[in-house]
Amino acid sequence: MAGRRDWTRETLAAGVRNGDRRALARAITLVENGDALAYGVVADLYPSTGHAYAVGVTGPPGVGKSSLVSALVRLVRAEQTTVGVVSVDPSSPFSQGALLGDRIRLSDHFLDPGVFIRSMGTRGHLGGLAEAALQALLLLDAAGKDVVFLETVGAGQSEVEVIGIADTVVLVLMPGSGDSVQALKAGIMEIPDVIAINKMDHPAAKTMLNEVRSILALDRDRDWRPPIVLTEATRGEGVRELWVKVGEHRAYLEESGRLDERRRKNLAGEVFAVASARAKRHLEHAVADDAELRRLLDEVQRRELDPLSAVREILDKVFHIDP
Amino acid sequence: MAGRRDWTRETLAAGVRNGDRRALARAITLVENGDALAYGVVADLYPSTGHAYAVGVTGPPGVGKSSLVSALVRLVRAEQTTVGVVSVDPSSPFSQGALLGDRIRLSDHFLDPGVFIRSMGTRGHLGGLAEAALQALLLLDAAGKDVVFLETVGAGQSEVEVIGIADTVVLVLMPGSGDSVQALKAGIMEIPDVIAINKMDHPAAKTMLNEVRSILALDRDRDWRPPIVLTEATRGEGVRELWVKVGEHRAYLEESGRLDERRRKNLAGEVFAVASARAKRHLEHAVADDAELRRLLDEVQRRELDPLSAVREILDKVFHIDP
Repeated sequence: MAGRRDWTRETLAAGVRNGDRRALARAITLVENGDALAYGVVADLYPSTGHAYAVGVTGPPGVGKSSLVSALVRLVRAEQTTVGVVSVDPSSPFSQGALLGDRIRLSDHFLDPGVFIRSMGTRGHLGGLAEAALQALLLLDAAGKDVVFLETVGAGQSEVEVIGIADTVVLVLMPGSGDSVQALKAGIMEIPDVIAINKMDHPAAKTMLNEVRSILALDRDRDWRPPIVLTEATRGEGVRELWVKVGEHRAYLEESGRLDERRRKNLAGEVFAVASARAKRHLEHAVADDAELRRLLDEVQRRELDPLSAVREILDKVFHIDP
Repeated sequence: MAGRRDWTRETLAAGVRNGDRRALARAITLVENGDALAYGVVADLYPSTGHAYAVGVTGPPGVGKSSLVSALVRLVRAEQTTVGVVSVDPSSPFSQGALLGDRIRLSDHFLDPGVFIRSMGTRGHLGGLAEAALQALLLLDAAGKDVVFLETVGAGQSEVEVIGIADTVVLVLMPGSGDSVQALKAGIMEIPDVIAINKMDHPAAKTMLNEVRSILALDRDRDWRPPIVLTEATRGEGVRELWVKVGEHRAYLEESGRLDERRRKNLAGEVFAVASARAKRHLEHAVADDAELRRLLDEVQRRELDPLSAVREILDKVFHIDP
């Protein structure tokens, strides 16, 4: 068995391309560590990506996103489709804090060679979560996975950026997701492609369905009307219907080139998001390491230098820009 | 009456310092427009700031943040305290979409010379919302306002950055705010200083109170235990108690220098947030305006150049950095 020191750019890229699980696991770990080797491997593999269909699964914590992804994985595996899962949800049982029952159900997939699951911590990524998730998606794509699920909580800039690469975005809600419904209503949360209302046995599920339906009805301008599916992930109910709706959205995108257009937009957005995150991280390190920049902050705190003048001096010093 | 062309850096700064409403309104508009004049005015006034106490009011859309701020304004005005309100909540009735009743209640304050209210659009700010809100807060502070409320929805990076300057953060929830409660529980949402559960007449209010209480009980390490207050903003119920709790938090901070420490941390955080936002905006313009950078994106889309290599080339070209 090859030790961790034996991988080279060439053997890693070849291993990932052949769908070797150890190579894939190692490459994604290197991506997470911001290792230069990972950078080269993804660069080598990138021309052979574009095969995988990326499904984003987002929604507030506790609504059952992971259970739903798990049920979807079971379903698509029955169709001989190979699957990758990238979870960047800190509240996800893929990552931590799972009930024993969840762990057991998920571990079924861990034993299936057609499934590759990776959860990612939410801290410590040089280019932010978006970069790590994007690179992991590309590796899974190059490894031949047909479908890759990206699971993430719906709130926060970095989560939005992670989901920004998905071909189809599924928003998962449950009865009690009043805040998300209000955010949809207020136009603060972007309308997803498919909505799942999970925990359909809850007495308030139908009320939530009607509320969400009435919000979507206000938006008459879009070509694609997001379908709403009631699910009960733990029993697998509604999961097939949900997958059918994802497939319909995919078919809709594939007609007349909309998928290419969306991917073009998504990729440009991700490149920009990753570049911003890297610039931000660079700024963070610069301010932490540079005594002169820290002195500026002291002056702001003593009310001798106003915050915006400090910002200008910092940007001039770190990026040589005067915005 | 002075026309808009008559203001100079000196007359604007003097006007704001004297609490002149027109000068204040003009200066905040200039801040929103990213005008160089505003930059100079805030720089001139900054040494005389630090008097105002900044109270952040955050929470999901629809919970009644604006009604609560309105009720708090009424209360503190009765104590002869002068007040500023900066609302950056796109769903806020301070901004738009208000019911007639809200408008009428808010307009009471518009006639009160001791109150200055400004809502801000969520788009088009060079340094992001955080910059505009920070500069507006500093202007209201320099104009002698004793208390400034910063109202913002709880989700999203920019909203978090806006609230980052507050001395005391009040989180407003209502029965049905299940998603926010789950986010608190999962550690995704930061624990605020004071929690208001609004719409206390709702049958589920007590259940929510108990849920929130049990989440806070898990966090035994902090010195300050966030109090929870039941309110009914439209009738003014619980509002006095809420204000008392804000005062207790303030007293807690003022003991043994904690307020200075928090403000030091807040200011450094804001300077960093504003610098990041400006760098991001600069990057956005560079990519939009530069044919060579757009060509990189085309290569990414044709899968000829991988995203991370494109990011590196962009960062090298725009910021001269190699992170």
